[in-house]
Amino acid sequence: MNSEIIAVGTEILLGDICNTHAQFLSQELAAMGINVLYHTAVGDNPQRLRQTVRRALDRSDLVVLTGGLGPTTDDLTKETVCELMGLELHPDRETQQRIEDYFAHIGKKMTGNNLKQAMVPENAQIFQNDNGTAPGLAVRHAGKCVVMLPGPPRELMPMYTRSVRPFLQQFMESTIVSHNVRFFGIGESKLDELLGDITENGNPTVALYAKRGEVLARVTAKAQSIYECERLTGGMIARIEKLAGEYVYGIDADSLEQVVVRGLIQKGKSLALAESCTGGLIAQKITSVPGASGCFAYGIVSYSNAVKAEQLGVNPQLIANHGVVSAQVAQAMAACALRNGKADIGVGVTGIAGPDGGSAEKPVGLVYIGIAAGNTTRAVKLMLGRGLPDDRGEIRYRAALHALDLIRRALADL
Amino acid sequence: MNSEIIAVGTEILLGDICNTHAQFLSQELAAMGINVLYHTAVGDNPQRLRQTVRRALDRSDLVVLTGGLGPTTDDLTKETVCELMGLELHPDRETQQRIEDYFAHIGKKMTGNNLKQAMVPENAQIFQNDNGTAPGLAVRHAGKCVVMLPGPPRELMPMYTRSVRPFLQQFMESTIVSHNVRFFGIGESKLDELLGDITENGNPTVALYAKRGEVLARVTAKAQSIYECERLTGGMIARIEKLAGEYVYGIDADSLEQVVVRGLIQKGKSLALAESCTGGLIAQKITSVPGASGCFAYGIVSYSNAVKAEQLGVNPQLIANHGVVSAQVAQAMAACALRNGKADIGVGVTGIAGPDGGSAEKPVGLVYIGIAAGNTTRAVKLMLGRGLPDDRGEIRYRAALHALDLIRRALADL
Repeated sequence: MNSEIIAVGTEILLGDICNTHAQFLSQELAAMGINVLYHTAVGDNPQRLRQTVRRALDRSDLVVLTGGLGPTTDDLTKETVCELMGLELHPDRETQQRIEDYFAHIGKKMTGNNLKQAMVPENAQIFQNDNGTAPGLAVRHAGKCVVMLPGPPRELMPMYTRSVRPFLQQFMESTIVSHNVRFFGIGESKLDELLGDITENGNPTVALYAKRGEVLARVTAKAQSIYECERLTGGMIARIEKLAGEYVYGIDADSLEQVVVRGLIQKGKSLALAESCTGGLIAQKITSVPGASGCFAYGIVSYSNAVKAEQLGVNPQLIANHGVVSAQVAQAMAACALRNGKADIGVGVTGIAGPDGGSAEKPVGLVYIGIAAGNTTRAVKLMLGRGLPDDRGEIRYRAALHALDLIRRALADL
Repeated sequence: MNSEIIAVGTEILLGDICNTHAQFLSQELAAMGINVLYHTAVGDNPQRLRQTVRRALDRSDLVVLTGGLGPTTDDLTKETVCELMGLELHPDRETQQRIEDYFAHIGKKMTGNNLKQAMVPENAQIFQNDNGTAPGLAVRHAGKCVVMLPGPPRELMPMYTRSVRPFLQQFMESTIVSHNVRFFGIGESKLDELLGDITENGNPTVALYAKRGEVLARVTAKAQSIYECERLTGGMIARIEKLAGEYVYGIDADSLEQVVVRGLIQKGKSLALAESCTGGLIAQKITSVPGASGCFAYGIVSYSNAVKAEQLGVNPQLIANHGVVSAQVAQAMAACALRNGKADIGVGVTGIAGPDGGSAEKPVGLVYIGIAAGNTTRAVKLMLGRGLPDDRGEIRYRAALHALDLIRRALADL
């Protein structure tokens, strides 16, 4: 099956947003065994959109469009596809109800043009949108299939995973199963070396992807049955764990924070946080996981020496003697967090995220993470970032991941 | 001048890499006043590449190709363009010398096929590559201009900035200036209605973009001089502010948190935070702004009643009487944060982010934000999200934006 992906939206052609959907959908379609022959981006222009879709229908079996399903008059994807395929648009009662419910729930007044989003092509498969108002749509006509998805990633991605992938799967002859093995603390090329020839093509395939601060290996098997797929991927994951298991933090896990929260709850342990340079980022990640209140109750962002001393309880003499960015202060922060939060594990993070505040002795990127568990307290020293002015976000992000990984490892010992 | 951008490489269609060049080049071309009408990605396939380039030459004045300039036989960009434009390839002595020098410098042996990279079209403009072996090329023929650039970002980007941008600038007659007006607290369709016909095409143009939780209006003018462009955009921005100014939080601002941190520092005021359902997200946003320590020192994530009482200082009787998710507790949290952090503005957030913890009386999505400034304390009540299981992230995100906007508005009164 040949396919192509069309992104609709002038904001892409202006460079306001990057067409990341093309990559996401390409990975998904490739994993299913569907060839992707073209990506196109076209603006909200009726003539050019029509020409682009017409050409795609001429040369591809499956056309996936993203964007252009919004409520305004320059959102034309649905109308264009229907015109070219000779289909009528009609209002869909369930979709309309969902849109009305959405506005009622958020307590805002629905404008008339939102009802445009409830118009669907005849005989369309409707993919309801759990994160917005525009439903996704699929139409099949004259041997062609067109899938239309909303532009915002937080709408498109869950919709694809939940509804579109199973919809497309039914047209495929063989079954595909993928599992994601997630690594922290190792780079992509080093991991590639460790894994050796198992990343070369075969069945299952193993594809490595560098994510922000971590690496993901996607293991994909193709076979006649799910059972056979699972047998193949299971064997490959066991081989990967044998070669690089010390860096694996989860299989099909959403994130390090999810693994940490689940681990804490499973073991009946609790966490407390004292953050300086990460400024609440670790607490934010922990509390982003549903049910986090079962293992986390206290976090403090102590962004000054006074707050570290008066509110957190760090001995000011320690700060005076060793400097606020030091292993000693990180450990004291961890111990105070543990005490204040009456927790089993306490973590303290102090560092220099920049762009200002660095020195020759303590440069931007220097971060200490202290961890207290039971009666033992220790600290690790990290040098993060590349010494560039725009490193602040990256230093904070990586410090947070390191802290989460330390919690995960400490938990294994409790 | 109309243009389009073509990325050549099967790895893009497999989703192995994201076509970030299209965004980079679009921004660059738009800033120069060159319209970008299409992005295309096509694999290393001779027929499909030829068709794609031929169509681009038919419909666009300028075609920018990225990738496919490597040394292997499946790198076909140069050969395809020359075939379609009727140009011969010949070896370029300087380029060949640079390639030989490059290999001598990195201490690797040059292979014979690297000399393929020294073949250039007749009368081509050559952009030498400081970070690799493939030179960039531009050819002009029959009223069309084709620019070919190497695929790796660390080769393409410096080459574009140093050589390609000045090369293209010489063909431009007019100047373009854009400004971004950022809105919070109003949806895209409501704003579209408020602004009326000013978003219809003209000069300056006004384009609305829905961002996560907010809306952006890009105002773009085209004229003979920067001065004239600024006069046009300035007039349009004044019209927008007259129609919807109460929702505008910044012009050309990066984010609400940036506006808040700058505003606090400018007025010499400080902020303290007590977060429950946002779990550190507001602190994380504030501290993501460089220099935030100049206005923020204390934040607490009080994720249990005990921590709210013992560490933050909220009267437990208040929680018992009104419930932890209440205007009274939000106000008390704000007042305690202000006191603990010795700050000028204190904010407290308490709500139900879900998926669990909701009731008929206090459903998931109910959030109270308390704000204390000087001697006054007040709270706002919000209903966020759609009551669906995966709303948690969105409820937290929007609560954080609302809190930041409240701080921004409170600051205006101080």
